[in-house]
This record gives sequence, structure tokens and C-alpha cells, in this order.
Amino acid sequence: MGKTGVQSWSFINPVYIQSSGTAVGPLEGQGPLSSTFDRVHDDLHCGEDNWELAERRLMIDAVHSCLQKAGVDESNVDLFLAGDLLNQNVTGNYVARQLGIPLLGMFGACSTSMETLATAAALVEAGYSKQALVAVSSHNATAERQFRYPTEYGGQKPKTATFTVTGSGAALVSKTPSPVKIEAATIGKVMDYKIKDPFDMGSAMAPAAWDTIKTHLEDMGRVPEDYDVIATGDLSSVGTPILRDLMKQDGYDITPVHKDCGLMVYHSDQPVFSGGSGCACSAVVTYGKLLDDLKLGTYQRILIVATGALMSPTMMQQKESIPGIAHAVVLTKGEVSQ
Amino acid sequence: MGKTGVQSWSFINPVYIQSSGTAVGPLEGQGPLSSTFDRVHDDLHCGEDNWELAERRLMIDAVHSCLQKAGVDESNVDLFLAGDLLNQNVTGNYVARQLGIPLLGMFGACSTSMETLATAAALVEAGYSKQALVAVSSHNATAERQFRYPTEYGGQKPKTATFTVTGSGAALVSKTPSPVKIEAATIGKVMDYKIKDPFDMGSAMAPAAWDTIKTHLEDMGRVPEDYDVIATGDLSSVGTPILRDLMKQDGYDITPVHKDCGLMVYHSDQPVFSGGSGCACSAVVTYGKLLDDLKLGTYQRILIVATGALMSPTMMQQKESIPGIAHAVVLTKGEVSQ
Repeated sequence: MGKTGVQSWSFINPVYIQSSGTAVGPLEGQGPLSSTFDRVHDDLHCGEDNWELAERRLMIDAVHSCLQKAGVDESNVDLFLAGDLLNQNVTGNYVARQLGIPLLGMFGACSTSMETLATAAALVEAGYSKQALVAVSSHNATAERQFRYPTEYGGQKPKTATFTVTGSGAALVSKTPSPVKIEAATIGKVMDYKIKDPFDMGSAMAPAAWDTIKTHLEDMGRVPEDYDVIATGDLSSVGTPILRDLMKQDGYDITPVHKDCGLMVYHSDQPVFSGGSGCACSAVVTYGKLLDDLKLGTYQRILIVATGALMSPTMMQQKESIPGIAHAVVLTKGEVSQ
Repeated sequence: MGKTGVQSWSFINPVYIQSSGTAVGPLEGQGPLSSTFDRVHDDLHCGEDNWELAERRLMIDAVHSCLQKAGVDESNVDLFLAGDLLNQNVTGNYVARQLGIPLLGMFGACSTSMETLATAAALVEAGYSKQALVAVSSHNATAERQFRYPTEYGGQKPKTATFTVTGSGAALVSKTPSPVKIEAATIGKVMDYKIKDPFDMGSAMAPAAWDTIKTHLEDMGRVPEDYDVIATGDLSSVGTPILRDLMKQDGYDITPVHKDCGLMVYHSDQPVFSGGSGCACSAVVTYGKLLDDLKLGTYQRILIVATGALMSPTMMQQKESIPGIAHAVVLTKGEVSQ
């Protein structure tokens, strides 16, 4: 059991997403997926005194929604896998302090959503955890402070820039049959096409998405048509055509089934440059809209490919290029109806 | 199989450390464990142009030593679990770029050494990886730049401060019988005793070590005497007596078997304040001296409790306290002789 092909994992004993929770900020709440989120904050501060506390509030909201829907108390969750974009993973760490659940902190930039879900599924499948909670978050203003300049400076950006999603997504993983099954996962390699522009993460991450999707299809002996949707995390309008072209060069046409969470989460006329990004981007779209569609039977099988730009301001100052990584998880309609 | 008690994992199918590798800087090379390291750099720059590249060099050295000893090519390693203290985990990320091995990035501050080892052991045991490589690193000058001030400023410190170990440790985990077996692990909770002084991480981390050791002993039905050594990661001379006192209040006397890697790695007259710390501290001591003693039969069973201060400069500026976490792994003498 377990390993399939070179980089993929198949979960032989069925593992399920028992429930999920999402919380977002105001701009996401004005987007097309508004009704699919559990909690929408009207204010970017989310009722807190600073941006970092606001991000923490979003993760707590997402976790609470998730656990409440499952009717599970946090004292019955035995493992918490969490990550975010802030230095020293502070959102996840401080939320774990509050929850009191044993923590595995993870970091894969914006790919952390599927990194935590894949690892949780493997640990639950193997019996190391009975109920594992995963959560990731990002906040536009904390990410700007962290990676670029505080938003208060009003710095200008090029059109290739992405806009960090303010939000958090959480999911509870267990062997309890539910409408959403976790079928398989593919763990990504670090890919680097020598992009050095931190305002063009779509180009930096597209090769990682390409490598992971291609490897996934080979490992599983599948074609793109085996999925109702292949959803990348945050390639935006810049990275999306690059990925589709790279796949075409390998003989795969993913265009009919490909969507990008960064393009799904906002209306095209919202002021978000080339689209949404951040840990929360793939998480709030997957744990909201995409799970809803699986539960309704609109989709039978989807592949979520969370993409991460392994960027650091120190490395940018040292003239390093931006490596990318992408982790993929296959979700299918479970045997149990909603 | 798998979960034991509330926070522990028992590895039913035997999992082993096939080989390990260590690399350190000059001050560690002048310490009492000098002869146990695979590579000692005489210069803090490790032949590189900046501190961050020096840290990367150390991790590459540790990984290469590890793989060379096992006679395994990196192309045959199917999973890399890595972490460090730098923003956005850059040491692990860029080393993974070079190695081309699928990456799970992890962050538990200085506890990342045992977080990666425990997770690798679980994934190998369950069949998700055949040969998993783990590595962590820290570098005194990168950590100072990251968490405090660049060393070039010559800032003064109180005696409670710890000194970040310059080094890296790596280990290869597989089911191939070897002289060192990974028997069990305990995943820690985040503990916070409201310490706000970033120059006193020993006090901040001692409660996390206490909670993990106590939970481990309860989960496994064991007493401290079941271990030849219980080695904490980096509590230093400040945190060590706090931990021993906390354990005594619960009726456990760990003093006869307790050692701290932060006190083992340097001579008491080296200029390191209250002792060593950093991701590399527990890693270079465990993957060097402690594994040697297991292989020689000096020890039959040891518990490594890697301790992490989940500190961030932004949180310090926001007057937050410093939470701690500790992850523990049990290593035993394997059936195979060296």
C-alpha cells in the first residue's frame, strides 16, 4: 500500500474529509464565491488590533466552523497540521497554542494547503491519527508587510503581481465515511526556472505545477480527462497559460478541465492585478466551492494542485531566483451522501 | 498499529536510521564532540560568499555524508523532509532544489530535527516512502541576522542567552535493518508559560519539554529509567534545572539520565552564554555522538526530545509571549551490528 509510481501516494484504506471550514476578508466576500464561505469579515482587521491577529482570527474562525460542522470537539482531535506565510509560521503556532492539539508545523508557501492535507491523509490512513485537523491562512496586509512593504506605504505594482487572499481554510480528516474521499496525493519537487521577479510568481510557479501534474498522471496511469477539474492554486492569469502550454508540449491538453483558484476567487473586475494568491487561495476555494460541487455530484473526481513560490525577501536581496513547488491531492465523491 | 496513548506513535513494522551525516562550524569543531562530526569547517563562511549560503553548504555537506555512508544515490531517495530557522525555510528549500527529491517542508523551530524524523519514520513505516531523507540546519550568523541583529553590530547579550549552533544534521530512514532502530515518537503540543524575553529561550522551552516527556512516559507506560539517556535539544543551563524540577513535581526524577544537547556540544569554558541552541543543536549531537553510542552498545535505548522556541521578531515587537514545542523520538540499538 501507499507509494504509487515515483512521487504519489494512494490511500488504500479510505480516508475522508469529514468537514471543512472557511473564513475570508471583505474583498473575497465581494467575489463570486461569497456564498460558499462560512464566515465573511467586512473589515480587513477582522475585529482585531493588528494584521497578524486578524490572520489568526481567520484561522480560528475556519477551524471552529470546520469542527462545529463535524460536531467534533477540539479535545477529540489528535493532530493539527498547519502552516502560513508569516515568519516562523506564527499563525499556525499561536492557533495551535489556543487549540491544545499536538502540532506538526509545515511550510510549502502557498502549497501548504495540499501539503498538510496529503500528510494528514497519510497519517490517518496509517493509523497514526484518528482525527487530524489541517489549516492554512494568509492575509493580504500581513503578507505585504512580510514580503514587500507595509500596505500603508501605498507602493505601486505591475500587472503581473498577484493579490494575497485574506482568509483561512481548515479541514478535518478521518476514516469516518463522508461525501468527500481523499483518494491520492502527489508530493512535489522544487522546480526553478530562474525567475527573479517577486512580482511575477505565476511564472515562477507554473513549472512546478507542470512537473507535479505530469508526474501525477504518469504515476496514476491517468489522463487529464479522468478529472472533472484540475485546479491549480494561484498561477493567476500570468501562470495559467504557461502551465497549459507546458502540458501541451508533453501531449496533455488540460485546458478543458483546468481552473485556477486565483482566478476563481475574485471577479475579473476586482482590483487584484493578475489574480489571487497566498496559502488561503487554494484552501478557501477547495474547502468551500469545490467540496460543495463534489458533495452535490457536480464533480466526481477533482485534482487540487496547490502551488507555492518559495520566496524570501533575504534571498531576493541576494539575487537568488524563486523556486516553486506544487503538491497535489485527488478528491472524489465519497460513498455517503451529504 | 500506529497511535499509542494520546500523542505517541509506535512503529510496529521496524523502521531504521540507515545512516546519518553531520557538518559543523569552527566553534563546534573545537568542542568536546569534535571527533564525532563528519565535516568540520574552520571558517564560519564555510567557503561561501554569505552566511545563508554557508548554512546551505552545511546542509549539503550533512546530506552528502549521510548518503555516501549508506551508499545511496540521491536519485533513489523518494522523500526529503527538511526545515531550518530562516524565513521561508530557505535552507531546506534551496537544498531540495539541488537534490531534486520531493520535499515536505516542516517548521517547528529547533524541534524540527525530531519533527522531521518522526514524520519520516511514520511515512516509511506505512509504505509511503521507501527511503526518506531528513535534514535540519542552523547557522549562528544567519540566526542572529534573522532573529536579533547582524553579528557585525557586536550587540551585547545577557547570560541567559543561548548560542545558535552552526551546523546541520541529516539522516536516512528506511526499513533496511541497521544498528539504529526508530521505535516510537511523541508529537508535542504548543506550551506557553508567558516568557517574553527572547534572550531566555531555555525558560520558554522547558515547559514544552516537560509536557512532551511526561506525556511520552504515560503513553508508553514507561519510567525515565527505561532510557539510558533522555536528551533534550537546547534547554541550556537555564532551562535544564527548570525541566528537572517540573518533572520532579510529577514524581519523575529524570536527573540521572537527563542530558541537554546544548550543554553537550560545547566545552563549559567556550563563549556560548548558557549553551547551544538552534535546529542543528539536537541534530548534530543525535546524528553524531548519540547514534555512535547506540551502535557501540553503550546505550540500548534513548529518548531525544528536540525543543523549539516558536519565536518571531514581529511577535516580540507586538509584545507576544514565546510559545514552546517539543517533539520526541525513541531510538534503540537495532538487531544489526555496525
